[in-house]
Amino acid sequence: MTATNYDFVNAPDRRHTDSVKWDVKDGELPMWIADMDFKTAPEIIKAMQKKIALGAFGYEWPQTDYFNAVADWYEKEHGFRPENEWMIFTTGVVPAISSIVRRVSHIGDNVLVQEPVYNIFFNSIENNGRHVLSSDLILDGQTYQINWQDLEEKLALPLTTLMIFCNPHNPVGKVWTKAEVQKMAELCAKHHVVLLSDEIHGDIVRNDQGYTSAFSVNGAAQENVISLVSPSKTFNVAALHAATAIVPGENLRNMVNRGLNSDEVAEPNLLAIPATIAAYEHGHEWLHALIEQLEENFAYAERFIKDNLPQVKVITGDATYLMWLDVEQVTDDSQKLADFIRKETGLIISAGSVYRGNGHDFLRINLACPMTMVKDGMERLKKGIEYFK
Amino acid sequence: MTATNYDFVNAPDRRHTDSVKWDVKDGELPMWIADMDFKTAPEIIKAMQKKIALGAFGYEWPQTDYFNAVADWYEKEHGFRPENEWMIFTTGVVPAISSIVRRVSHIGDNVLVQEPVYNIFFNSIENNGRHVLSSDLILDGQTYQINWQDLEEKLALPLTTLMIFCNPHNPVGKVWTKAEVQKMAELCAKHHVVLLSDEIHGDIVRNDQGYTSAFSVNGAAQENVISLVSPSKTFNVAALHAATAIVPGENLRNMVNRGLNSDEVAEPNLLAIPATIAAYEHGHEWLHALIEQLEENFAYAERFIKDNLPQVKVITGDATYLMWLDVEQVTDDSQKLADFIRKETGLIISAGSVYRGNGHDFLRINLACPMTMVKDGMERLKKGIEYFK
Repeated sequence: MTATNYDFVNAPDRRHTDSVKWDVKDGELPMWIADMDFKTAPEIIKAMQKKIALGAFGYEWPQTDYFNAVADWYEKEHGFRPENEWMIFTTGVVPAISSIVRRVSHIGDNVLVQEPVYNIFFNSIENNGRHVLSSDLILDGQTYQINWQDLEEKLALPLTTLMIFCNPHNPVGKVWTKAEVQKMAELCAKHHVVLLSDEIHGDIVRNDQGYTSAFSVNGAAQENVISLVSPSKTFNVAALHAATAIVPGENLRNMVNRGLNSDEVAEPNLLAIPATIAAYEHGHEWLHALIEQLEENFAYAERFIKDNLPQVKVITGDATYLMWLDVEQVTDDSQKLADFIRKETGLIISAGSVYRGNGHDFLRINLACPMTMVKDGMERLKKGIEYFK
Repeated sequence: MTATNYDFVNAPDRRHTDSVKWDVKDGELPMWIADMDFKTAPEIIKAMQKKIALGAFGYEWPQTDYFNAVADWYEKEHGFRPENEWMIFTTGVVPAISSIVRRVSHIGDNVLVQEPVYNIFFNSIENNGRHVLSSDLILDGQTYQINWQDLEEKLALPLTTLMIFCNPHNPVGKVWTKAEVQKMAELCAKHHVVLLSDEIHGDIVRNDQGYTSAFSVNGAAQENVISLVSPSKTFNVAALHAATAIVPGENLRNMVNRGLNSDEVAEPNLLAIPATIAAYEHGHEWLHALIEQLEENFAYAERFIKDNLPQVKVITGDATYLMWLDVEQVTDDSQKLADFIRKETGLIISAGSVYRGNGHDFLRINLACPMTMVKDGMERLKKGIEYFK
């Protein structure tokens, strides 16, 4: 298989396929929910087909080859190899977050996040009777920064027992540096707050910026971190329901393992293991080709917005396939703007307000689609914003 | 597709495929965990292959065709059609049981069961801080009966808030009559105990005995029942991770729905919907052919035991592919006997003691496999029991 076999030009037709993203009216263009309009790597499809041919689909558990594949991937792609015994299979990053919220914090506790942040964190926290406490990210011109003093004050509160760290950060696309991840882990350990690092976007980093997994931090702080990783975003397999919790500390790992099992989110479905192994063993080239395509898509959209929508500012780091657009000069109610754009142009994008913090000034747009869709989306965005005024 | 296309002669080779059942030593014969050594229906495999070919596997939700397929199946196979709006997709019967335990009962409550019963119920109850309370089934010669007086006394206890009803009953294979299901539902409603009916074995009923789903009961009691159904056992797709909660009562349904979502066991993986639809739309003929094969297997095993192991008594109803063997004349410690049989003959069967109640006098053996395996298993069982004495 060579890169020329990979198709980033044709979007699979997902209307009437149970797709959440494509459950839309004729003529609408969904660029909101974070899945991609590309086919997954053909190496993964091949592994799925092979498994289907087996024909008998009883109870399963992951074997050494699964854990080796995850470890190999993190060593080759990200320069740090987790130990096999640090890992636990789970049906997804969000199921694991909800389970860990229940297992390592108590009802009434604070769970610290950094708004604006992935909105489903709020569900995992609030549905389980915990409180969201945010140390908001600070927009400093072109990029978001951590207010370390505020963060530490909030970590030090006795009711703060868990921090959910979005690493890299969705929706703002920020890649945290090695030093920042280390500092975050040390502050959490110092204040007896478990650090739960959602790394689902870790593979999708443009411009060779890499990312630092929380499980790779140095020193005693490593005993206090949980990294959640998955091929879900990377290979467009959200509905594969496969992820891995990487927990170097033995005691914390036992707690997480017990929680995932009691919550029934620790057993693999019939495709989860073979597809993950195929992704991590044979997906390197496909991922690198995908990232090149995303770099082209981001460059096009950034240029288009600069040329056509001077009142819109692209605030976006190197991570995720989601672009974060500052529309403060257009409105202070991004939900109203997003609803208007959908109604007038059929373009469906996410209002930044769902991510809280300063998200009400922003839109999030998913650029993981063929260039023809990116161009179509940009034209609709232009029309929508022009009409809105 | 005709029945002659269905293969109940060759077992797929599942060694080294992550199978829990076949993670065994060379020469061992696993006849314990409840999955089958038959390939699933070819109609299901075809639907899976079609879905894989789509290539993009983002977020999904079930549409009307899913609920229609479930409703059609229950109408055609079991004579009662659930309303589409009664149904909620879930990733499995056991995940749903655990979630419902958490949502409809409180920590410290009693959850009523009928021992000997499917051992995983105990995990769902005890892992969530509730107490198992049993109204033991009474072995009355050849068959188990409900002690209604004892049951009602236990339902009436203020701390009893949930009953888990195994319908049909695993491991004893009992099919509850329409009158018994109705009476159970009415007693639960009378005492304000939610009736959770695990119907995962409902399709596997031999000798035309049928079964009665709890959702089909008459009168006000229907508002108080939850039926859990799945193609899992029926079509040998445990690792499909697909099931349906059928809850006629609106208020109870909203509670269950909220729980399944908060617990992250309400979203379908990429095969769950199309494979379930294929099973329920096109699986009738395959299921009927399977049941014929199971009838042959049960007849062979019953004859063999009668002829060769007079000290062993087959206590088995018409439901499930699991045979329940009374070994009271051999031992009062069925775990010790099961361990001995494995060590001496390689045959792996379940000790009845894990099901509690009078299970310490029993073995459970899985007969859902080609006749060659049934014969092999019977020879090993004979040898094991003869050596044990």
